[in-house]
Amino acid sequence: MAFPTRRPEAPPTPLNVGILGATGTVGQKLVSLLSGHPWFRVISLMGSSRSAGLPYEAAVRWLEAEPMPAWARDRNVVAPVPSGNLDLVFSAVDSRVAREVEGVFARAGTPVVTNASPHRLLPSVPLLVPDVNPDHADRIRELAAGSGFIVANPNCSTTGLVLALKPLLDAATIREVMVTTLQAISGAGYPGVPSLEILGNVIPKIPGEEEKLEVEPLKILGDREDGGFRPAPMAISAQTNRVPVVDGHLLSISVGFSRPITVEKAIRAIRSYRSPSADLRLPSSPPRPVTLHPNGDGPQPRLDSGRGGGMSVTIGRVRPCSVLDLRLVALVHNTVRGAAGGAILNAEFLWAKGLLGSGKRSKRNQARGEPVFSGPAG
Amino acid sequence: MAFPTRRPEAPPTPLNVGILGATGTVGQKLVSLLSGHPWFRVISLMGSSRSAGLPYEAAVRWLEAEPMPAWARDRNVVAPVPSGNLDLVFSAVDSRVAREVEGVFARAGTPVVTNASPHRLLPSVPLLVPDVNPDHADRIRELAAGSGFIVANPNCSTTGLVLALKPLLDAATIREVMVTTLQAISGAGYPGVPSLEILGNVIPKIPGEEEKLEVEPLKILGDREDGGFRPAPMAISAQTNRVPVVDGHLLSISVGFSRPITVEKAIRAIRSYRSPSADLRLPSSPPRPVTLHPNGDGPQPRLDSGRGGGMSVTIGRVRPCSVLDLRLVALVHNTVRGAAGGAILNAEFLWAKGLLGSGKRSKRNQARGEPVFSGPAG
Amino acid sequence: MAFPTRRPEAPPTPLNVGILGATGTVGQKLVSLLSGHPWFRVISLMGSSRSAGLPYEAAVRWLEAEPMPAWARDRNVVAPVPSGNLDLVFSAVDSRVAREVEGVFARAGTPVVTNASPHRLLPSVPLLVPDVNPDHADRIRELAAGSGFIVANPNCSTTGLVLALKPLLDAATIREVMVTTLQAISGAGYPGVPSLEILGNVIPKIPGEEEKLEVEPLKILGDREDGGFRPAPMAISAQTNRVPVVDGHLLSISVGFSRPITVEKAIRAIRSYRSPSADLRLPSSPPRPVTLHPNGDGPQPRLDSGRGGGMSVTIGRVRPCSVLDLRLVALVHNTVRGAAGGAILNAEFLWAKGLLGSGKRSKRNQARGEPVFSGPAG
Amino acid sequence: MAFPTRRPEAPPTPLNVGILGATGTVGQKLVSLLSGHPWFRVISLMGSSRSAGLPYEAAVRWLEAEPMPAWARDRNVVAPVPSGNLDLVFSAVDSRVAREVEGVFARAGTPVVTNASPHRLLPSVPLLVPDVNPDHADRIRELAAGSGFIVANPNCSTTGLVLALKPLLDAATIREVMVTTLQAISGAGYPGVPSLEILGNVIPKIPGEEEKLEVEPLKILGDREDGGFRPAPMAISAQTNRVPVVDGHLLSISVGFSRPITVEKAIRAIRSYRSPSADLRLPSSPPRPVTLHPNGDGPQPRLDSGRGGGMSVTIGRVRPCSVLDLRLVALVHNTVRGAAGGAILNAEFLWAKGLLGSGKRSKRNQARGEPVFSGPAG
Repeated sequence: MAFPTRRPEAPPTPLNVGILGATGTVGQKLVSLLSGHPWFRVISLMGSSRSAGLPYEAAVRWLEAEPMPAWARDRNVVAPVPSGNLDLVFSAVDSRVAREVEGVFARAGTPVVTNASPHRLLPSVPLLVPDVNPDHADRIRELAAGSGFIVANPNCSTTGLVLALKPLLDAATIREVMVTTLQAISGAGYPGVPSLEILGNVIPKIPGEEEKLEVEPLKILGDREDGGFRPAPMAISAQTNRVPVVDGHLLSISVGFSRPITVEKAIRAIRSYRSPSADLRLPSSPPRPVTLHPNGDGPQPRLDSGRGGGMSVTIGRVRPCSVLDLRLVALVHNTVRGAAGGAILNAEFLWAKGLLGSGKRSKRNQARGEPVFSGPAG
Repeated sequence: MAFPTRRPEAPPTPLNVGILGATGTVGQKLVSLLSGHPWFRVISLMGSSRSAGLPYEAAVRWLEAEPMPAWARDRNVVAPVPSGNLDLVFSAVDSRVAREVEGVFARAGTPVVTNASPHRLLPSVPLLVPDVNPDHADRIRELAAGSGFIVANPNCSTTGLVLALKPLLDAATIREVMVTTLQAISGAGYPGVPSLEILGNVIPKIPGEEEKLEVEPLKILGDREDGGFRPAPMAISAQTNRVPVVDGHLLSISVGFSRPITVEKAIRAIRSYRSPSADLRLPSSPPRPVTLHPNGDGPQPRLDSGRGGGMSVTIGRVRPCSVLDLRLVALVHNTVRGAAGGAILNAEFLWAKGLLGSGKRSKRNQARGEPVFSGPAG
Repeated sequence: MAFPTRRPEAPPTPLNVGILGATGTVGQKLVSLLSGHPWFRVISLMGSSRSAGLPYEAAVRWLEAEPMPAWARDRNVVAPVPSGNLDLVFSAVDSRVAREVEGVFARAGTPVVTNASPHRLLPSVPLLVPDVNPDHADRIRELAAGSGFIVANPNCSTTGLVLALKPLLDAATIREVMVTTLQAISGAGYPGVPSLEILGNVIPKIPGEEEKLEVEPLKILGDREDGGFRPAPMAISAQTNRVPVVDGHLLSISVGFSRPITVEKAIRAIRSYRSPSADLRLPSSPPRPVTLHPNGDGPQPRLDSGRGGGMSVTIGRVRPCSVLDLRLVALVHNTVRGAAGGAILNAEFLWAKGLLGSGKRSKRNQARGEPVFSGPAG
Repeated sequence: MAFPTRRPEAPPTPLNVGILGATGTVGQKLVSLLSGHPWFRVISLMGSSRSAGLPYEAAVRWLEAEPMPAWARDRNVVAPVPSGNLDLVFSAVDSRVAREVEGVFARAGTPVVTNASPHRLLPSVPLLVPDVNPDHADRIRELAAGSGFIVANPNCSTTGLVLALKPLLDAATIREVMVTTLQAISGAGYPGVPSLEILGNVIPKIPGEEEKLEVEPLKILGDREDGGFRPAPMAISAQTNRVPVVDGHLLSISVGFSRPITVEKAIRAIRSYRSPSADLRLPSSPPRPVTLHPNGDGPQPRLDSGRGGGMSVTIGRVRPCSVLDLRLVALVHNTVRGAAGGAILNAEFLWAKGLLGSGKRSKRNQARGEPVFSGPAG
């Protein structure tokens, strides 16, 4: 991704960031995407005890098509311990350890921007997609701005779904959503799906995925309320499939409205959709968070996942549904928009909204009171 | 497929059959499956002017994993012209020519058992799946048994869908069906889908497929009535995807009932389902036309398409749906049950029901009156 | 595989066999291929401590396209302990444990027919391909027939290579062999190759494979001599690649002879090749162990690996080489001929040659003296 | 590809270029790579009569992952007719028509930089890889600089092979080369390889490819001589395979030297290789035309084809060969370095060497004498 070099809202000096789980596939994508980032400077690559102490190059099985950035190669992986000179940590750790380690950082006063799932549904944790529900970040201010907290981006398929639904929601009330996904193998990390299971095959189940896809959008699309978030009043039914595709989750969606809208109106809503955060001109914000595919047989994962630098969700095949009201297809780049890129966008948004401190670390640390994260201890 | 050697209802001598479109992928599968068939003997391989006159081996790009049967290799491909010594033709011709050529044979008095689509919705043509709607074959008798007619098997995905729905229909009234398919490349024939389009990719549109999947099941699951068939009163919404799988169409299905049934009842209905034609013990009839997959992550195309010799539809992931009532996944072998094997089963069924004449060709031909096929001339 | 039902040399009662490593991919293939075997009856499925005590169905992630045989499902996996009622064990254990566990069985007096690599190069262990070097089995007799011993089949690619070379060797002296392989993922077992590494990709290295491919053929194609085997005087150079294919290793081979032979002579040699063990009519012996592909662009893994029930090596593209003398391509089904099927053929051959005892277990056990296996203790 | 914006040797105004065969896969890649090129401006997209008259967007099935450049979308495809305002045409036409149409342009005085094969072996046509045999371009000057001529880049696999061999050739004399290729489907264009042939499969033959790979390198690696080129005195033996990979041809190479060199010396030669044209700093010239892969299991097509913007050949697995002297693996991006990118680099090189006229079209056209291309008329 090429970043614009100058923006009014850039931090005076780059923020010092760490990556939790830097050796995994999402961690690698974070390392890739943060290389040359205008606002963030990676000063700490954190990994498990298996990796800690090794140079990053030796600790990681690099699976990105871009070569490993030179700055990362010799950097030693360190244990995940909070430190005063981190303005922010990105978390890409495994769900099994995320609950504990993210809580440790948040309680130590370090903002955590996480891709992991355990904290996503907590009332103290905004589940944030700045192009969809930017007001949810206000929850942080409500708690105690500038101190430790956790902000999560949703599951990769959820990200695609809420971005696909948002333009329609602005035009009408959605009551029901039926979604069947065709998900890429990179969503399972590494080693992830054995090739003997998926080559020339489909696996019609992804453990835990359907639950996330049926619940997370309700929080994101719901309203802020005192002390948390009120789920959107809609029903979602999901069936998830793994397909032999490297990157890009495709969602076959059917939507039922309270009062049906025409296909033309739906297309207009998608075409004219602008991110409510567009005026912030964040470095990772694509020109259009949701775009309409020009052809009748798109979007397609291999060809279209990279649109908008991997940050745009592409919609296609908008047409009437003979059971609910509207059928459409959406594509999201699962490791960029749906994971690492989504987390970076969240961090950029938090900075732009003044929720990440001043970038002057010493000062902020002095002024810091109690951390605000109040999730269970893990 | 291995055929039992002896059955009470076998023809006294094997019926002489021809294959229209013998060089295409479905034609090849017919050649494979009919090798050693106890009831049918292929005496004529018919092809287009490009192939006619060539030995089959030279005319065909053989794509079956089984080697080409020895009997077929040197057989000359001939032009598609009706002949008195054919008891039956199987048609696997391209839809664009099927309308005309099938009509020619039917009008000449030769029963046509077709896999092609053009005649499927005609009121004079039963759209037959003997395990689902065997009574629809009575339409032939109504017209004029023994004479020329056309019997069609449905689209490959439709076959999977109606077999998946039939056990549920026997237990409750279905009002709505939502289906998203993940279809194998063999469904597109040869050369079919270019590898540059599908390798590591998904194409979220298959031209013409959704229309078939939304309409054909209504005819199959509907009732016979005087002069034709009355569509079942249900709504189907379909979205079809091509995936990089060789054989096996997977269907992600959601069903809405007039009065919901429990998951347990649905599973019992599937488990206990027996073909209404089971007592005929047809050579290609699988022990169970519909089976339940034992594991939570099945069925899977590469592992399970071949169940029941490719003639069983496998069901999995039966569970509640939060929008309609019941979610399930079904898998059908698209070139066997969904095409060549389905056509062969239809022919076997027609014989067992006395709708294919006596197998004594000369006699039958003398006694034959007007052909009954009354579709448009093509 | 369908087995002929009657053969003169069948054991009076089926031999009782066990499978070491029954839950792995080769173990599963053994379970599949031994179902209904006319000579062997599986009485013991042995696995690691992780599996022991579980029903086979619960212990295994079944990856065969054929459903798990009914007899195996409820059979409890047991620990690998020698027992007097086993006439023979097939070993499909991981190389890391094979050395020890196979030695335990052999020393206890149970013949071990193994697919694992550790003992392959020992002078007391014949590396046997009955269609290539049947006389190597005589080594067993030399040691002490009827008692415990180990017979190994070679690496899957080696099996393909020696079967491809043997007809040529019968026609001329081979001095040099250059081989580049394109190997299927099933060769790596399960979980084996992560899909993120191999989907739409090639990995130009398979650890340990090239060493085997350069050394094992020399033993197989060499002569028996007192106390062991003398390597064939030829040089082999190998480069091995993993490709996204499920089953079937393809070998691109170039051969240099002492005195070049014409392409025509080479083709004649391949065409006319008969196994030296053909007269034994072993159940798993294919009609032709080596066949010539009829087309100019074959053999191909997905279409041709199953020839001869997976037991035939298919040759294609025989032509002059502008650096050495002759170029050709060979295909071997890596999990059938190259692993489980090869082991079963070895066991059949050993029986037919009188090297497996009488099949009357109690008698044989009484008469049994010292085991002959003299490899290191593991 | 991002181009540096300023170079000393840039043309005063961008050269006007046309693309012959602009709708094919290589034509699309040319359109992509020439977007924003600092030296060349595409003013003419030429196609067959089927495409001529249509907007490019309507005429092409776009298969690049980058969206179609905005400037190309509405540009009308035109018939391939020479015109005075073209400084140069890139040719990506099918081999069957290349002979004629390229001759027409060359004879009309327009320099043709072609990726097509028909003229490659003509003595009047340099087969040019500027990082390997830049002196071959002098042949143009010998004929009559500034006038119409044809310069060809080699077959995609040949490009990879000569770049892999060149560093070794600078260190020792190569006598024999054995090469087995694993080639991507994009090398066959569109529709190219049917998915039913290649999904989960390997095709061990690519028509015409081996002949090119055995002959073209001899011209490239040979010497210029009066009136043409003298083939290098070495023997090459090739076997080519199609594998299910999208982009990137992998070559398994074995090299025999007159006097063997050590692996260390070979690695040093590869590591230290610099293009003889490096000082020209051409826009498409990668920092290193040949690089060594850092890991023991690389290079791999999906991960490494894009190195150096797709213009670097990556070498791995350098080791002794037990039949010839040295084994290695090379990877080339077949549609970039091996096709479109290679052609663009050739054009840049021709400009930098003063072989493309002054960029002031009117003047040059007045001064133009007879075209120099002397191939057959087609």
